[in-house]
Amino acid sequence: MPDPKRTIAELKELRALTADENGAQRVAWTDTWLKARDWFTTKIADLPVEDHKDAAGNRWITLRGDSEKALILGSHLDSVPNGGWLDGCLGVMSALEVLRGFAEKYNGKPPVTIRLVDWADEEGARFGRSLLGSSAFAGTATIEADRGRTDKDGIRLEDALRRCGVEIDRFPDAQKEQDNAAAYLELHIEQGPVLESMGLPLGVVLGTKGVERHAIAFTGQEAHSGSTPMRSRRDALAAAARLALELRPIAARYPDAVCTMGSVKTYPGIVTAVVGRCETTLDQRDLDVDALAELYRLAREASERFALQERCTVEWSKIWSIEPVPFNLELVDLCEAAILETTGYVHRLPSGPLHDAAEVQRCGIPSVMMFVQSLKGISHNKIEDSKEEHLELAVEALDRLAAKTVDWILSQ
Amino acid sequence: MPDPKRTIAELKELRALTADENGAQRVAWTDTWLKARDWFTTKIADLPVEDHKDAAGNRWITLRGDSEKALILGSHLDSVPNGGWLDGCLGVMSALEVLRGFAEKYNGKPPVTIRLVDWADEEGARFGRSLLGSSAFAGTATIEADRGRTDKDGIRLEDALRRCGVEIDRFPDAQKEQDNAAAYLELHIEQGPVLESMGLPLGVVLGTKGVERHAIAFTGQEAHSGSTPMRSRRDALAAAARLALELRPIAARYPDAVCTMGSVKTYPGIVTAVVGRCETTLDQRDLDVDALAELYRLAREASERFALQERCTVEWSKIWSIEPVPFNLELVDLCEAAILETTGYVHRLPSGPLHDAAEVQRCGIPSVMMFVQSLKGISHNKIEDSKEEHLELAVEALDRLAAKTVDWILSQ
Repeated sequence: MPDPKRTIAELKELRALTADENGAQRVAWTDTWLKARDWFTTKIADLPVEDHKDAAGNRWITLRGDSEKALILGSHLDSVPNGGWLDGCLGVMSALEVLRGFAEKYNGKPPVTIRLVDWADEEGARFGRSLLGSSAFAGTATIEADRGRTDKDGIRLEDALRRCGVEIDRFPDAQKEQDNAAAYLELHIEQGPVLESMGLPLGVVLGTKGVERHAIAFTGQEAHSGSTPMRSRRDALAAAARLALELRPIAARYPDAVCTMGSVKTYPGIVTAVVGRCETTLDQRDLDVDALAELYRLAREASERFALQERCTVEWSKIWSIEPVPFNLELVDLCEAAILETTGYVHRLPSGPLHDAAEVQRCGIPSVMMFVQSLKGISHNKIEDSKEEHLELAVEALDRLAAKTVDWILSQ
Repeated sequence: MPDPKRTIAELKELRALTADENGAQRVAWTDTWLKARDWFTTKIADLPVEDHKDAAGNRWITLRGDSEKALILGSHLDSVPNGGWLDGCLGVMSALEVLRGFAEKYNGKPPVTIRLVDWADEEGARFGRSLLGSSAFAGTATIEADRGRTDKDGIRLEDALRRCGVEIDRFPDAQKEQDNAAAYLELHIEQGPVLESMGLPLGVVLGTKGVERHAIAFTGQEAHSGSTPMRSRRDALAAAARLALELRPIAARYPDAVCTMGSVKTYPGIVTAVVGRCETTLDQRDLDVDALAELYRLAREASERFALQERCTVEWSKIWSIEPVPFNLELVDLCEAAILETTGYVHRLPSGPLHDAAEVQRCGIPSVMMFVQSLKGISHNKIEDSKEEHLELAVEALDRLAAKTVDWILSQ
């Protein structure tokens, strides 16, 4: 039987080892991250497992079973700078606890192969490229676009990886790890306020939302704040402000949609001038691909309407987009059942943030995630936290889900 | 009789001497500004005038008259970096043309003393302190607050002035120039679109608007753009956007009021985060002191209402304020008459931008300004321009106004 209290104790041990007064510092490809991985080695020393890294630096712990078909559990040990004690490592350490349970229950030889994966560089904190390791696994890596990325000290991604024994040109070899993969499970903190607002410890994740991310710039006419009558102005900020507020009725058309204007820059941006140019960013997310397309269309239309009304012009340029990734519906049902048996209550919710599980599901391996409640919805911050009793329930529920998934794999 | 075409020719000569491909570069206390003043010396060489600089670097050209009572005409030769060919220097060169007319008409001895002043550092472009010279003249200088100001290279205001022979501690001595001052006249480009929109070459300026200038910061809660439902957000940008738009109905309560949000800064200001803090600036202007107070009160009240509704907080901090300065009503009437005689049409308008004339009027010397139409309302830019026929009319009208003002001084 898994011991959830051990998982919590190990997470605290990891925090003591890799956090400073500002929070967790396990940024991928840094010494602190390597130290976390070395620490993890000590945790698996007594287990009957194989341990290797793939061509993208993802780490695989394999407990061979009677069948080569593999149940994969995992997450990532890397963190953002000044991060929390749960994001990522909760999923890795709870997966370890489940694997220990399988090893014990089946005397080292479970009915199917159980694998734990510690993805490399989920956060993309240092080079701005998230899901780096899991995208290599999934075959969606963008090597040429990424090799020349630099960190704030000018170090190239390619060189930082090489220092950790990873050659970016060998990324495609990581796809070999897909062999025999039958299902993927990942436990993660919610990083949002939904479960807390409902008073629920655990939730089933329906998938990761698709994202449309654009830069939107309004151009009007810079003018003197004192000499330019209100009616003569072509105020780029006014057009941007109207769009910022219009995003809310647009998002309200779909129950789980979110639209965020996260950055506004004004030019010349001085107290004595009407804003001549206003540069904004827009991030829109929904789990439904048609809804996401409609959100984008509505925002674009609104921006053009406001630009016209304010006698400004507007330009859109795409920053990035990704399609929604719905998780496997049968695994969603199994996850719901596991949570219900553990807590008596369950809620289905989409994930706004991206996760490695989305890359795994995208390459055709049935996947699902479970969320545990985050306090105040805060993550990527040293105050990130969850109640310990909820973390314990999460490890229990993940163990139940893993058992159900093994049966499901065997029934295929 | 004054020769308006000579004024235009001299302005073009000054432009050729002190502008580069980006516009005028006569920034106060720089070599180019000193070069402009040296050039001006050549223009007065044949006139029967005294020429000296006061303790604040303002330059006074004095044509002694039968009476010690003095009519002062002036403006400033300094410009912003990359400025236009008219802002400031039009007023100085047209004053010179008027002074030449008096010297000629009265054989060097007009009925009252005629003085031309070239104010030092009207723009405040280098150290962020406008009206520097005229405030010393008026006795409203803020020496301790200003001496330590630095330019972008770290040079202190105090040291830049000393290099030009001006000791900031001697500023109070400049008030001696107030002696016998009976009236002050200043011609300036409008720097706004009002006269152009009405098809009028010239306007009478009623005064300079008072200004309330504040920094307004909204604080909500930074949150993940993907995981935070719309209804859970405390979006500081939403509160700021509502205020930006509310400024327009607020300003609309008074015919000449202007309210401008010129700068918006978002924190953390990234595409993936709801804005946790939004820092804005607000500039409000009106010629009526009660209206200005009400504009401020309404904006403050609106900001507090929006903050409450968006579950944010709001802080206000004053950047700067100045009371409205209405010009002398008798001189306003004389100016109107002079324009009517010159063009047949006139319009009374307040000045949104501040001018040296406001400092002169504030210290009790009857003052008025005349505006000439600006094309597209643009100034502080190399494309700043006015029609040459309008500039000629302006010099004529200023000459008429000066003659009327001499009579008015003699009648006091």
